[in-house]
Amino acid sequence: MKIGIVGAGTLGSTVAYALLGKTWCTRLVLVDRDPVRAQAQLLDLQGTSSFAQVTSGTYQDLQDAEVVVFAAGLGQHPDHELSELLEDNEALLQNTISQALQVVPDAVFLVATQPVDVMTTLVARMVPTEKQAQVIGLGTALDTFRLRALIAEHAGVDARDVQAEVIGEAGRSAVVVWSQARIAGLPLEAYFADQQMPWNNAIRNELADEVRRASVNILQGKSAVSYGVADAIAQVVEAVALEQNRVLTVSGLDARWPVAVSLPRVLGKKGIQRNLQVRLSMAESTLLNASVESLLEVTKRLQPASNA
Amino acid sequence: MKIGIVGAGTLGSTVAYALLGKTWCTRLVLVDRDPVRAQAQLLDLQGTSSFAQVTSGTYQDLQDAEVVVFAAGLGQHPDHELSELLEDNEALLQNTISQALQVVPDAVFLVATQPVDVMTTLVARMVPTEKQAQVIGLGTALDTFRLRALIAEHAGVDARDVQAEVIGEAGRSAVVVWSQARIAGLPLEAYFADQQMPWNNAIRNELADEVRRASVNILQGKSAVSYGVADAIAQVVEAVALEQNRVLTVSGLDARWPVAVSLPRVLGKKGIQRNLQVRLSMAESTLLNASVESLLEVTKRLQPASNA
Amino acid sequence: MKIGIVGAGTLGSTVAYALLGKTWCTRLVLVDRDPVRAQAQLLDLQGTSSFAQVTSGTYQDLQDAEVVVFAAGLGQHPDHELSELLEDNEALLQNTISQALQVVPDAVFLVATQPVDVMTTLVARMVPTEKQAQVIGLGTALDTFRLRALIAEHAGVDARDVQAEVIGEAGRSAVVVWSQARIAGLPLEAYFADQQMPWNNAIRNELADEVRRASVNILQGKSAVSYGVADAIAQVVEAVALEQNRVLTVSGLDARWPVAVSLPRVLGKKGIQRNLQVRLSMAESTLLNASVESLLEVTKRLQPASNA
Amino acid sequence: MKIGIVGAGTLGSTVAYALLGKTWCTRLVLVDRDPVRAQAQLLDLQGTSSFAQVTSGTYQDLQDAEVVVFAAGLGQHPDHELSELLEDNEALLQNTISQALQVVPDAVFLVATQPVDVMTTLVARMVPTEKQAQVIGLGTALDTFRLRALIAEHAGVDARDVQAEVIGEAGRSAVVVWSQARIAGLPLEAYFADQQMPWNNAIRNELADEVRRASVNILQGKSAVSYGVADAIAQVVEAVALEQNRVLTVSGLDARWPVAVSLPRVLGKKGIQRNLQVRLSMAESTLLNASVESLLEVTKRLQPASNA
Repeated sequence: MKIGIVGAGTLGSTVAYALLGKTWCTRLVLVDRDPVRAQAQLLDLQGTSSFAQVTSGTYQDLQDAEVVVFAAGLGQHPDHELSELLEDNEALLQNTISQALQVVPDAVFLVATQPVDVMTTLVARMVPTEKQAQVIGLGTALDTFRLRALIAEHAGVDARDVQAEVIGEAGRSAVVVWSQARIAGLPLEAYFADQQMPWNNAIRNELADEVRRASVNILQGKSAVSYGVADAIAQVVEAVALEQNRVLTVSGLDARWPVAVSLPRVLGKKGIQRNLQVRLSMAESTLLNASVESLLEVTKRLQPASNA
Repeated sequence: MKIGIVGAGTLGSTVAYALLGKTWCTRLVLVDRDPVRAQAQLLDLQGTSSFAQVTSGTYQDLQDAEVVVFAAGLGQHPDHELSELLEDNEALLQNTISQALQVVPDAVFLVATQPVDVMTTLVARMVPTEKQAQVIGLGTALDTFRLRALIAEHAGVDARDVQAEVIGEAGRSAVVVWSQARIAGLPLEAYFADQQMPWNNAIRNELADEVRRASVNILQGKSAVSYGVADAIAQVVEAVALEQNRVLTVSGLDARWPVAVSLPRVLGKKGIQRNLQVRLSMAESTLLNASVESLLEVTKRLQPASNA
Repeated sequence: MKIGIVGAGTLGSTVAYALLGKTWCTRLVLVDRDPVRAQAQLLDLQGTSSFAQVTSGTYQDLQDAEVVVFAAGLGQHPDHELSELLEDNEALLQNTISQALQVVPDAVFLVATQPVDVMTTLVARMVPTEKQAQVIGLGTALDTFRLRALIAEHAGVDARDVQAEVIGEAGRSAVVVWSQARIAGLPLEAYFADQQMPWNNAIRNELADEVRRASVNILQGKSAVSYGVADAIAQVVEAVALEQNRVLTVSGLDARWPVAVSLPRVLGKKGIQRNLQVRLSMAESTLLNASVESLLEVTKRLQPASNA
Repeated sequence: MKIGIVGAGTLGSTVAYALLGKTWCTRLVLVDRDPVRAQAQLLDLQGTSSFAQVTSGTYQDLQDAEVVVFAAGLGQHPDHELSELLEDNEALLQNTISQALQVVPDAVFLVATQPVDVMTTLVARMVPTEKQAQVIGLGTALDTFRLRALIAEHAGVDARDVQAEVIGEAGRSAVVVWSQARIAGLPLEAYFADQQMPWNNAIRNELADEVRRASVNILQGKSAVSYGVADAIAQVVEAVALEQNRVLTVSGLDARWPVAVSLPRVLGKKGIQRNLQVRLSMAESTLLNASVESLLEVTKRLQPASNA
């Protein structure tokens, strides 16, 4: 199973390291516009105990990759202006995707470039309509994992026993679907009441804030987010590569909105195999609409679509 | 981390093989009344690529084991009369547990001897009341895993995205808690309606029957159940050994009934750390009561408790 | 990655269980002439926590399998006459292979049917000469793993630090290549001298006997060898499936002898990618020749080759 | 199993990420003099899918750690003067170790601070003589893994089939023990002759240079070495934590020289369980002596030992 990674900076190389921990990943290729950096990451990664064949190369070397991860571009950072980020990354991604599409038109593309929903929209518009399901944005996948971990810790159970989702924009307006969250099948209210633990709006807001502010908080103490994001990306790649039909809250373009938004989606060989509906409370529904609105606003700044 | 297994027949040795696949399991000891059989299993297991130190020995060699699995006794089988099974396994387990208790009084005991709820009741009565949480019966843990896998396959998603539980007696009267089952947070009715797939009582009964009859069906084509049960046991052992606080439907004695029954329980270092309440529909509640009743009936045949 | 297993008895099903522990193995199909048994094993295996899709079926269902393991036939057993074993398994394998060849002519065939070198010879003669490298016999792969584990335990080091091989017939006349064995690069004599531990012919013979007699010793206490063999088979399958170029002592037909014999061979996508030479002492050379002679004797009893 | 990491920069946090991939590592604590950085790394690491409990804290929180990794200090870098590196890291490590020794005097200490042999010498002198085996320097462990991977790639086999060691100073004067290197038990000369591939001094020097210059080459394209080193550290930690008795070329103080040097050593619960002798050619012996000499020269600059 061959995986390609475009962008060999901190994020791309951490994704590579995460994938080297998976035995099914037998071939990995790094593509970066700075070949010296790609070569350095390569040398570093080749020192690990993985049995995979790791190489660096050009877009041509993506040949046969089943999934290509796009981790290039300016990272999220308090110092980066959104407009600057958008402009730079848009140009970069357009060039990058065009080249990748010529080599691996049938691969699944996983977009992790920031801002991720806008970039996913951009990429999804570049591929033929019938192939849009092959374009996946990382979206709120990590937010969902974080939310489950936080609820699990708060409740004193394992994260595998928590069902909860974060949907909408991958960013400040992300929506926690509290109304559907469960611990071992129990509504959260019931669980905490049984355990005689408090459970109220203040606690929910605190947990939701912790999720939404995680990246910002991380960036206060280090120059780039890496481990959590890379791990989430590796899970999305695995879901596709091993055809797991796993439900993950990733971003994608579907009939509902003209912008890529994170919703629970079933991932398999073809990328997004199916989209799930979500049942929202009135309040959650309002928040989701606001989240989509804010995304639409940003997306307007994109150049006109090329494949419309 | 050292784990002990009492009973080196098909089940005990398959449990050993399953545990050898876990890197954290560094020492494994097999105890069997037939030392020739134990030695044969040992030789076979030592041919595997595990780095664990595997030995066979007497009860004394359980020393330092954190968890001891009891897999001894006559297996479930269409040809075995329940009364015969009960009598034989009761005598065996009483002797076995007495000896183990002298060597590892603080270990967690995982009971897999059939019929598992009755045997778990027996063992839980043999330990001091304050240590009853250290006695875990495998109960419906495997039934729950099977149910999730069947729902997942039916729905076209990954088993990790299904929350569903089987509770009550580990056997014919086991109860599927349909009312709380979820796929990615959605009630099953909603999920299948959205996907335009049928979902009705007939389908539910078929899936429930497949779960409840799995052992019987397996025993029609081979002489003993092994892989699924061993794998479920290894998961329970791991939840305890790695202090995962995982919620599993295992059997145990608590204040609710004088007989060990499977309910969702939080597993950690001390065995059963906490018990969860379940929300049942009226029909499910009736079925659970009937399931407990049938267990109480069988348990009456046990000898009077020794630690009361 | 899809793997096929022909023969769903104790060995075949244990191989299936071993492979379900590998994440790269996403599809597994069991084929058995007794569909009730295959179905029972399937149900048992489906209870495990693997994410693989496991099915049972006919030879047609081997379609797309990259490796097919042949685990059918009478097992090795003190009570089985060699001639009886030969005759029965020869007929069985000829039928089995013919059918498999029609469905997956390009798959790698891993032969584990007893006596394994004779059966490997038989199968290798059934395929076109240019495809003989796709036929691998399990051979002395397990013996080599066992030898390393025994030396490692004796020396107080990890098995990964021991290099040692067992070659020749998979059976009583198997040859331990003591002259090339090493611990962390040191000749065994040097290692044990440095550690002030005895190392002599008596110890060597004891270890070699333990390896050669392992199966016989196991069969004194249980009805079939399973865990060690299944684990070794899973390692050979993995070496092929993940194109590891791993050197394993498997059986195969090459230009040196008209019978399949175990020698260190490099395993990859195409089966046996290359054969390594071995450097033997005079005594080892004599033993290897005797081992091959004894195999040639048995092989004469086979029916004339069909593809000559 | 609890592991401590002192130093939450790029190296320390990558070690944390590597350890989170090991199921046996259930608790991980990060200690850094900059609590904001430690908190940022923690938040990032908590986003991963590991089930381990990760925390950050003070030296007090190292309590119960079985192994403590010291990854603090200035990294190796072309721009860093050796004398500056020495002085800064010496002061830092002395302070760090003093504090750690008060909390976990019986833990195994794994030193990864640069220059690693000098720092290992420093730390080993700070502990009571009878505890010196608990002090392990990462030494040439990574160089050895790299060498094996390079030989394996060159030979077309799996790295598990290569035995080869790098010993001496972890740095420019590191010595490749070509005379003992083997592929599947064969001397390299024999292997390459059999395969009709060239094998000469030029090739050997090229491979040795690639190993010795790996860090320098990596640092030309990125600001810090991380993945390979972190992975090697995780392997050493695992060897100790799981009592594997694995032979690794780590640095340590023993009776042979007054400075810590890398040699093959058996690692287990107590740290360095035993030291292996090495058989060297005359040329290799000369190189090792030169390597030790150069280390002694640097070590003279250290402050007088505190525990002599």
